[in-house]
Amino acid sequence: MAHFAIAHCNMNSFPVTKTFVRSTGSCSAICRYSLPFQIDSCSRKILRSRKVRQQNLSIVRATAAPMNQEVEKSLLSGSLQSDPFSKSKKVMIIGGDGYCGWATALHLSNKGYEVAIVDNLVRRLFDHQLGIDSLTPISSIQNRIQRWKSITGKNIQLYIGDICEFEFLAEAFKAFEPESVVHFGEQRSAPYSMIDRSRAVYTQHNNVIGTLNVLFAIKEFSPECHLVKLGTMGEYGTPNIDIEEGFITITHNGRTDTLPYPKQASSFYHLSKVHDSHNIAFTCKAWGIQATDLNQGVVYGVRTDETEMHEELYNRFDYDGVFGTALNRFCVQAAVGHPLTVYGKGGQTRGYLDIRDTVQCVELAIANPAKQGEFRVFNQFTEQFSVNDLAKLVTTVGKELGLDVQTMNVPNPRVEAEEHYYNAKHTKLIELGLQPHLLSDSLLDSLLNFAIKYKDRVDTTQIMPTVSWKKIGVKPQSVTSR
Amino acid sequence: MAHFAIAHCNMNSFPVTKTFVRSTGSCSAICRYSLPFQIDSCSRKILRSRKVRQQNLSIVRATAAPMNQEVEKSLLSGSLQSDPFSKSKKVMIIGGDGYCGWATALHLSNKGYEVAIVDNLVRRLFDHQLGIDSLTPISSIQNRIQRWKSITGKNIQLYIGDICEFEFLAEAFKAFEPESVVHFGEQRSAPYSMIDRSRAVYTQHNNVIGTLNVLFAIKEFSPECHLVKLGTMGEYGTPNIDIEEGFITITHNGRTDTLPYPKQASSFYHLSKVHDSHNIAFTCKAWGIQATDLNQGVVYGVRTDETEMHEELYNRFDYDGVFGTALNRFCVQAAVGHPLTVYGKGGQTRGYLDIRDTVQCVELAIANPAKQGEFRVFNQFTEQFSVNDLAKLVTTVGKELGLDVQTMNVPNPRVEAEEHYYNAKHTKLIELGLQPHLLSDSLLDSLLNFAIKYKDRVDTTQIMPTVSWKKIGVKPQSVTSR
Repeated sequence: MAHFAIAHCNMNSFPVTKTFVRSTGSCSAICRYSLPFQIDSCSRKILRSRKVRQQNLSIVRATAAPMNQEVEKSLLSGSLQSDPFSKSKKVMIIGGDGYCGWATALHLSNKGYEVAIVDNLVRRLFDHQLGIDSLTPISSIQNRIQRWKSITGKNIQLYIGDICEFEFLAEAFKAFEPESVVHFGEQRSAPYSMIDRSRAVYTQHNNVIGTLNVLFAIKEFSPECHLVKLGTMGEYGTPNIDIEEGFITITHNGRTDTLPYPKQASSFYHLSKVHDSHNIAFTCKAWGIQATDLNQGVVYGVRTDETEMHEELYNRFDYDGVFGTALNRFCVQAAVGHPLTVYGKGGQTRGYLDIRDTVQCVELAIANPAKQGEFRVFNQFTEQFSVNDLAKLVTTVGKELGLDVQTMNVPNPRVEAEEHYYNAKHTKLIELGLQPHLLSDSLLDSLLNFAIKYKDRVDTTQIMPTVSWKKIGVKPQSVTSR
Repeated sequence: MAHFAIAHCNMNSFPVTKTFVRSTGSCSAICRYSLPFQIDSCSRKILRSRKVRQQNLSIVRATAAPMNQEVEKSLLSGSLQSDPFSKSKKVMIIGGDGYCGWATALHLSNKGYEVAIVDNLVRRLFDHQLGIDSLTPISSIQNRIQRWKSITGKNIQLYIGDICEFEFLAEAFKAFEPESVVHFGEQRSAPYSMIDRSRAVYTQHNNVIGTLNVLFAIKEFSPECHLVKLGTMGEYGTPNIDIEEGFITITHNGRTDTLPYPKQASSFYHLSKVHDSHNIAFTCKAWGIQATDLNQGVVYGVRTDETEMHEELYNRFDYDGVFGTALNRFCVQAAVGHPLTVYGKGGQTRGYLDIRDTVQCVELAIANPAKQGEFRVFNQFTEQFSVNDLAKLVTTVGKELGLDVQTMNVPNPRVEAEEHYYNAKHTKLIELGLQPHLLSDSLLDSLLNFAIKYKDRVDTTQIMPTVSWKKIGVKPQSVTSR
């Protein structure tokens, strides 16, 4: 199973990899390839011919997968090279090929930032391994970047590799010299982390060690760099008191202190983000790292101003039981006439936000960086809904569109409170200027219409939840054996 | 550097390893060997001859290193086999060759528990790699177990391998069927975790993934098994309010909840324990695991009733700047006429306990297990001292012994508050019956005399701190390059 090859690869500190170096004046892409990523013999030849001595390094470039000819040509002619006179702030986006990362990369590029994407593209591999696919057809990262260049004239640099391999990450830092790093580069699905022991271990290793490496790279190569790290509201769990933004002032036995807000995460994925938060907080104190931890709610939607510009810029849209988020899943279910799958009682309440607000929040964090040594936490969501609230909204709007929307309560595959108090603060990003896109009927209508447009691509066998929090075992699970 | 071989090995989920199986009726030891552990050709032949088909499995046994002949003979004759009629509780001690683990293994064996040690012996490798050594000469684990058998008639089973390799751990669980697991099997030095990036990553990977594997093994093979996990008081940091035992009741904006006590760890090691605590708490809730997290203070002393029985049973005693704990270090410094090394202002206050209380606390936890699904936290220490308090105590007692004890304030290599409030609760183990050994002058006198007895073995170049929290970098550090 290819999954294990990946896990094996990531878990080697120093795997056998090769870095190819090109000696021209433009900086486009670097890649360290390792076992799971195959390289064809043609690309190998092209790359080998570019291998030069490191002392002449002005570009570090290679690719793990054969690029299409258009991109290949533009790279050779230097059309993707960065503007040497650019004064814009340099932002490295780790995980920039993913759902939130891609939208953010385009948004920041559009706003005049100099953007580099760092990604090992493993999210695409998960689709292959689990037999799932985005509702929207998505283009290769190489085509995406080329299309963006052809439409806007703006370059996005590309570094393909695994941040768990420190040598790769170090080269990317040295080549790009980021002033901000936005770190989306983690396994981000709670169900994925609960499939089997191997995926649980993979998730925690990949996320925790990747983030440790980012912290070391900042300390070593870019100590002034502002880290913007994607956390999750799920770190807090569902306490019976108000959730504050990262810290809480506690008076206890007559004394008072402001301490990290207690964490009660409920999957190996959510726990990995808790671990990251603690690690980052320590390095801010010990090394003076400046960091913003964005504890993000559940993201919905797919369109942003930038991804709408061309079909090749479209973002992914997951509706399956592993990677699909609640509202996105409901819209697809309504579009294909599948009952909305409410897990358990449906009283589970969470913070939600439109993906257009994700990109806005990241931009606000970058434009208003944390101070040196500061570990700052923002709760990144705009509205709270219960699962039942969402089901009702989709039902109402679906009827207006002529859809017969039913709801079914399915046994909850997760371990979570289904009726609980929930009141989470989220004022800091508003204070910085966030203009929320609220989940009004018109937005929902637009999202539903988008699902209807692509409904022929829906694989209805992927809709029901297949991963159980209680049944996870040590035996490796594949799609066929589930 | 062998360290990297280990790290590499641990980070493979499925490395190339071999398990050897023996078909007689006694259960002695299992080992999966991998690169860092060399096996000689002689042992290889013996082992190969014992390889039988798994269906006849009643013993799983092999060794990574050649055993001495006495142990080898006794194993072959079955003299280390477990008593098939034993009704005693079966306790697996992971990390049972280490400082706290070895003392605990002997204590529980002496109290009538059926004990198995699981250990990859990597702590001994760290000594080699860092060029350090225990003050006390320590015997091999094989000799230790054989000596214990010859003195008391009691068996301790031995499983040599790495718990980060799940297949090994699974075999050990299936063979021994523990009713309690005491998990000391982690990299336990804060300075070690701060040597370089590689050791930071190793520490977090090894500790977090090892513990995840233990949790999965319990869920899969021994769901009734009680996990007793060694945490650290360092998870709490030094908040300006009283430290409770694991949880704190917070009233906030008119509502109240009891939540995990906020964590502020201050090294990659301490952070790894925070991560473990969160992971364990989740599995108690999701899977019904029953767990006790022993947040232990700084342990001092070396003698227990059992280790005193014979020189081959002696425990290790670390005094170096990497693995030595504060009071142990001071005693050795006083014994050899080296000034006591107080880091910074010396106001750093922590909880301390005698190693005889460590073994007592673990026994109490096992005898009074957590309930199914319960995540229970005990603060395991008996007294609080500042570093200056300890220096004064050692100076006073040293003078009585005719030693001229000086104190020097050295720049603090750590990032920590040097003057702070500290009041940590520690009543739960007392309520279970803990009878503390307090650090009275007589105890200190005995500890100091022990240091004096072995002072000729002291390498004074190992005394000063060499690891800086702020200077840690990405370049691999070896002793010679520091």
